[in-house]
Amino acid sequence: MALIVHKYGGTSMGSVERIKNVAARVAKWHRAGHKMVVVPSAMSGETNRLLGLAKEIAAQPSPRELDLIAATGEQVSVGLLAIALQEAGVDAVSYAGWQVPIATDSAFTKARISSIDDKRVMADLDAGKVVVITGFQGVDPDGHITTLGRGGSDTSAVAVAAALKAEECLIFTDVDGVYTTDPRVVDDARRLDKITFEEMLEMASLGSKVLQIRSVEFAGKYRVKTRVLSSLTDPLIPLDVEMHSGTLITFEEDDTMEQAVISGIAFQRDEARIIVADVPDKPGIAYQILGPIADANIDVDMIIQNQSVDGLTDFTFTVGRGDFQRATEILTQHVKGHVGAGKVLGDAKVSKVSVVGVGMRSHVGIASKMFRTLSEEGINIQMISTSEIKISVLIDEKYMELAVRALHKAFELEQA
Amino acid sequence: MALIVHKYGGTSMGSVERIKNVAARVAKWHRAGHKMVVVPSAMSGETNRLLGLAKEIAAQPSPRELDLIAATGEQVSVGLLAIALQEAGVDAVSYAGWQVPIATDSAFTKARISSIDDKRVMADLDAGKVVVITGFQGVDPDGHITTLGRGGSDTSAVAVAAALKAEECLIFTDVDGVYTTDPRVVDDARRLDKITFEEMLEMASLGSKVLQIRSVEFAGKYRVKTRVLSSLTDPLIPLDVEMHSGTLITFEEDDTMEQAVISGIAFQRDEARIIVADVPDKPGIAYQILGPIADANIDVDMIIQNQSVDGLTDFTFTVGRGDFQRATEILTQHVKGHVGAGKVLGDAKVSKVSVVGVGMRSHVGIASKMFRTLSEEGINIQMISTSEIKISVLIDEKYMELAVRALHKAFELEQA
Repeated sequence: MALIVHKYGGTSMGSVERIKNVAARVAKWHRAGHKMVVVPSAMSGETNRLLGLAKEIAAQPSPRELDLIAATGEQVSVGLLAIALQEAGVDAVSYAGWQVPIATDSAFTKARISSIDDKRVMADLDAGKVVVITGFQGVDPDGHITTLGRGGSDTSAVAVAAALKAEECLIFTDVDGVYTTDPRVVDDARRLDKITFEEMLEMASLGSKVLQIRSVEFAGKYRVKTRVLSSLTDPLIPLDVEMHSGTLITFEEDDTMEQAVISGIAFQRDEARIIVADVPDKPGIAYQILGPIADANIDVDMIIQNQSVDGLTDFTFTVGRGDFQRATEILTQHVKGHVGAGKVLGDAKVSKVSVVGVGMRSHVGIASKMFRTLSEEGINIQMISTSEIKISVLIDEKYMELAVRALHKAFELEQA
Repeated sequence: MALIVHKYGGTSMGSVERIKNVAARVAKWHRAGHKMVVVPSAMSGETNRLLGLAKEIAAQPSPRELDLIAATGEQVSVGLLAIALQEAGVDAVSYAGWQVPIATDSAFTKARISSIDDKRVMADLDAGKVVVITGFQGVDPDGHITTLGRGGSDTSAVAVAAALKAEECLIFTDVDGVYTTDPRVVDDARRLDKITFEEMLEMASLGSKVLQIRSVEFAGKYRVKTRVLSSLTDPLIPLDVEMHSGTLITFEEDDTMEQAVISGIAFQRDEARIIVADVPDKPGIAYQILGPIADANIDVDMIIQNQSVDGLTDFTFTVGRGDFQRATEILTQHVKGHVGAGKVLGDAKVSKVSVVGVGMRSHVGIASKMFRTLSEEGINIQMISTSEIKISVLIDEKYMELAVRALHKAFELEQA
């Protein structure tokens, strides 16, 4: 029998009834002989309620105090779940992050896990107990409570699974897995039985919000077999069905002949494109343009600079649509004159569409198939960027759904 | 300037506005140059909400998990208060009990403080910070979170004051001090400027619910100057007024000639009296009667056994009214036959009234004055018990208010 980590999101923990359902599911795994560790999120709405109280008192509350306050949401969850497990006849014990301890750095509200001590948890597991550990939080070297940021419980679960060398980490959520694309956009989007870690990373970072991206990085770094599956099924569903449901994030590329070249179509709707035009093509220009943007805490996504033919070049990049106004102002007021640019132009209504798949490493023609498909639909490509396992294009927002559907069909993703 | 501990109850912390008021009050003391430690309770209603969730899951939840859950109420409070202090321009830091640490035994839901480490708090105070510490909780030798039981924040505050050798511990609450008796019963009840620790102990244990009795014991043991005062006044009231308001619990008996003989009239309305009649007067009988009562976790208050004249005696004691039924059943079913008692009688409608005062040590005639006063009102005394500084009588419940008023007047307590 194996050591298994379950993670449950805030919706799954949202009421006393749902907590009892989680307990029934965990008890089922425990009775089958598995050593069980459970990482629940705060009850849905609780973290917002707590942060809301703090924000009522101060517009910019101390991050250190915010973490101490927010961490209580998960602490309540673990206690309630342990009680529900005991009520279901299972010996259980709960721990806050500092009790394990889950050690982090001191970057309050966005801390990173540095190490997890497995001694206490292992002793409990060996004694036959289910161990319930708070997600989202840890403790820094000075004994201050830290949190990992939004979605941090996914990361906690994967990190705990890595530290305990768990057989598998199951992330129970309100979707039943990872799809070839968003089913709300493409009707016949198909759930993937498997996806590689690298593909998942691209899918997550490109806007498929099933898993927090840091948890995927963790899964990759420590090679934690991670499965995304639904908590909305009957908790007493047969174990051998449940343990093969959802989507498994794997680390070996499938070596069957029938391997899919493309795994999915990811997209990010709310992008904005900014062009700093007619810039002198000389060293340091990229830094002079993007430095002030980074200083303003604005994330930059795609970046393109063409080779110049006349000593002048156009520098183009994308930002989230919410940052478009601010980024344009910074460039116009502080950068344009300084770098001697001709003008600053922009388009706040663009979207990014990407095809993702480890198979494209060994297949030519993916890019041309993608561009031809878009061309046949009359969709103009504004920017292109590529990585080993993905090709992204920037297009007019109004064509986004059309592009996703056409690409999904062209790459035959509806077929297993 | 002095090291001062403030404690604020759940009502004082009941909303964002009230928390800001607490911060304004603490900031006033801090600006006057005092080193400030603050111990707030959970926001009013929060502890009940948390325990209610647990009780929805299990009728008898694990005490260990209950403590982990309930402790979050105070953790939220300290974080919010620290933020409010920072917003008021005061450098502040908050700690959960385990971070100080406040060490306790492992008696979950009713733990006792064993020691408090002052290093971390002292370093913060020396650095000019206000330190906000969770009431009600600590950490046991194995790193489990414990709570001290209802009203435990009073005890935390006094214990912290003792550990830090604070000049004074101010308990801010929704009454403005300790009265000669309950003002709801006697209109001209008078607030006491001072009361001795021993008197306070009797007043607290006899039903004046201003302070949790364990906090008074702690104040006595470690000689912590403790003041009970109102948090409902303007937080910006002049400091020299506030620092002399409320009631101070002292350790020196006043040596002025005018010292009051009696400090107050305490009462406990909901008592019940049980008589085990015609019991053979032989060794071990008290234990055989009270052992099963104690085993059922029923607290016994007054106990009387008269000397026997005919080899048979009556054994009489009182319990809280809520335990009357159960205690009577235990005695009738399990004890009566065993000890060879004649019968078990009882009266569930009795009340206890007590006069309390360190002055009675050196004054004769207090008892006779008390008994005469009750006699003049036609009130029959059912039981009497005495200590060094108090005389208690048990009377029919319907005469309770009358007795309290008559005694308050007879001992001239309305006069300072």
